[in-house]
Amino acid sequence: MTGSTPAPFTADDYRARMERAAQAAADAGLAGLLVAPGPDLLWLTGYAPTAATERLTLLVLAADRDPVLVVPTLEAPDAAKAAGASALTLRDWTDGKDPYATTAALLDGSGRFGISDNAWAMHLLGLQKALPNTSYVSLTEALPMLRAVKDAAELELLAAADRAFEEIRKVPFAGRRESEVGADLADLLRRFGHSQVDFTIVASGPNGANPHHEVGDRVIERGDMVVLDFGGLKQGYGSDTSRTVHVGEPTDEERRVHDIVREAQEAGFRAVRPGVACQEVDRAARAVIAEAGYGEYFIHRTGHGIGVTTHEPPYMIEGEEQPLVPGMCFSVEPGIYLPGRFGVRIEDIVTVTEDGGSRLNDTTREMVIVD
Amino acid sequence: MTGSTPAPFTADDYRARMERAAQAAADAGLAGLLVAPGPDLLWLTGYAPTAATERLTLLVLAADRDPVLVVPTLEAPDAAKAAGASALTLRDWTDGKDPYATTAALLDGSGRFGISDNAWAMHLLGLQKALPNTSYVSLTEALPMLRAVKDAAELELLAAADRAFEEIRKVPFAGRRESEVGADLADLLRRFGHSQVDFTIVASGPNGANPHHEVGDRVIERGDMVVLDFGGLKQGYGSDTSRTVHVGEPTDEERRVHDIVREAQEAGFRAVRPGVACQEVDRAARAVIAEAGYGEYFIHRTGHGIGVTTHEPPYMIEGEEQPLVPGMCFSVEPGIYLPGRFGVRIEDIVTVTEDGGSRLNDTTREMVIVD
Repeated sequence: MTGSTPAPFTADDYRARMERAAQAAADAGLAGLLVAPGPDLLWLTGYAPTAATERLTLLVLAADRDPVLVVPTLEAPDAAKAAGASALTLRDWTDGKDPYATTAALLDGSGRFGISDNAWAMHLLGLQKALPNTSYVSLTEALPMLRAVKDAAELELLAAADRAFEEIRKVPFAGRRESEVGADLADLLRRFGHSQVDFTIVASGPNGANPHHEVGDRVIERGDMVVLDFGGLKQGYGSDTSRTVHVGEPTDEERRVHDIVREAQEAGFRAVRPGVACQEVDRAARAVIAEAGYGEYFIHRTGHGIGVTTHEPPYMIEGEEQPLVPGMCFSVEPGIYLPGRFGVRIEDIVTVTEDGGSRLNDTTREMVIVD
Repeated sequence: MTGSTPAPFTADDYRARMERAAQAAADAGLAGLLVAPGPDLLWLTGYAPTAATERLTLLVLAADRDPVLVVPTLEAPDAAKAAGASALTLRDWTDGKDPYATTAALLDGSGRFGISDNAWAMHLLGLQKALPNTSYVSLTEALPMLRAVKDAAELELLAAADRAFEEIRKVPFAGRRESEVGADLADLLRRFGHSQVDFTIVASGPNGANPHHEVGDRVIERGDMVVLDFGGLKQGYGSDTSRTVHVGEPTDEERRVHDIVREAQEAGFRAVRPGVACQEVDRAARAVIAEAGYGEYFIHRTGHGIGVTTHEPPYMIEGEEQPLVPGMCFSVEPGIYLPGRFGVRIEDIVTVTEDGGSRLNDTTREMVIVD
């Protein structure tokens, strides 16, 4: 979230993004967009404050005025250095003053506004109190696809973490703690260019049955399945991949479950093409697992978008009718989780092309045997 | 924010905190508290999810029911491991289901609720839509002092970063980049027990005039004032201290400005005692600077609380009439910032005692000359 602006973008790029966002808001019947620190602000302005805090920072975009960034006086010098700063006006406010009054003066007092999902509730409450006749909708609900379609320069920056996988499969697993292998993975991600490591899941044996287990003190044993899921930010854009490895020879059941997940991942990937609804990608992957009799053990959606964050719309989930558009990037990552026993997940990042999908990850999806 | 629970707290401690919070909410006329991932949730339950996300996690506290933690199914196993988990009921929800309906079923549909400052706006909007007759107030506005008064075990955990200052004053400054000295500071904080480094400000020469400058590429020169401000989390509790050093001999003006800030810091500290309003601490420090003719160059509040975060209520700021209570912990950190030239800030963490205040930091507040 924090960190520097991806290198290739200029004030003109940010101006164009802000204009496009303001237009999309107007088209959606909104009086404007209110953008909080985080991925939306970074993508629209190149500005990432050190942290989101109780001090209000908010970008105001509306079709009928130039962009204004409301910012604490203390942080104005940093904001002024952002790559997109020359495409907006800074409006600073000093400790002890009311930032909601400052913001309210910029807004249509009876308008409906899109507001960043991750804006702080206290800031939304401050605006609702200052302008009781306004209404709000989360940016993801109002404009879910605002950042979803990547342009060529963004696609260029989207990273694969494949080299980290090629190296981690060579390290010893048996007899080491998950946390040690996780530390190796983090080192590898940094060595191969990541400025930020977001997650390094090493879920061995029964821990693999919890899709969100990160790393623990468990000592990995011969005979374990181990789910590896890792990613972070490289040049400001995300990476995310999962492979499931086995320490020594797998049982027939372990092979079968891995094969089912691999087929499900392939089916999800093959469902990707322009015009297809997101939920069809989920259905395609889920059908393979359900037909094999493991439907109740696939307990999460099939995928999520990726860009300046490692989790964002579009989501590959039942009920998501958004059609795929060339330039969208997301994960396809079905899994099977057998409580108390083991789990398997296989994940690639896929980009929608003009006539199908293209995988960002090239490492083998066959089960890799490690030591 | 993330990370493990401070070691000494048990499920009984968390149960007592949750009961106290629910009672405080009822006393304030609220139907309950809605607590999002972050410092509030960590303090009340010992649970810190890996990240706050679009997937709703919310602790529901109300005087007339036992605590319930609404949590994504995926994250339930992690939540169940939290030290306070046995003092609450987990209510999990699966991807594709409506978490706001799950939460709404637990709430008085016409009640007024306190909600964590940093809860995501999208989650607040989801609740407002599910229960249109409810109303909300930020937790800091409703119960600003919820975490402000520390008990003996918490005071024991509150950390000083003094050893890092004693070491950093020995390293060479002249000829090195701010970022290099900042990296040294981060290493020292970790070496002396910090699990998380929140900030390492090294603001040299003109950069010192921006109170929120972190570190840059500027090469520190002989003759520079350098503001150092650093802290993070140690055993789950915060540290935060500032000292301003000078590379070689200072000018008379630099000495005078440093003396004024030191006197202002002393005056702020001496104003601390039970029953005094927070704003009086700000006024005491500010008066010294204003009388010396530098009032317009002290551009931030005098202090902020510290606990499981490095910035929280109470704030030492004009308009804050909250009386000080023994056990409150906060910074006293006046500064003078001369644009384009240099800045000075001196900061200690102060605890309110039965009859005054006690500083957590023992390093000298005289100007230290470095090489």
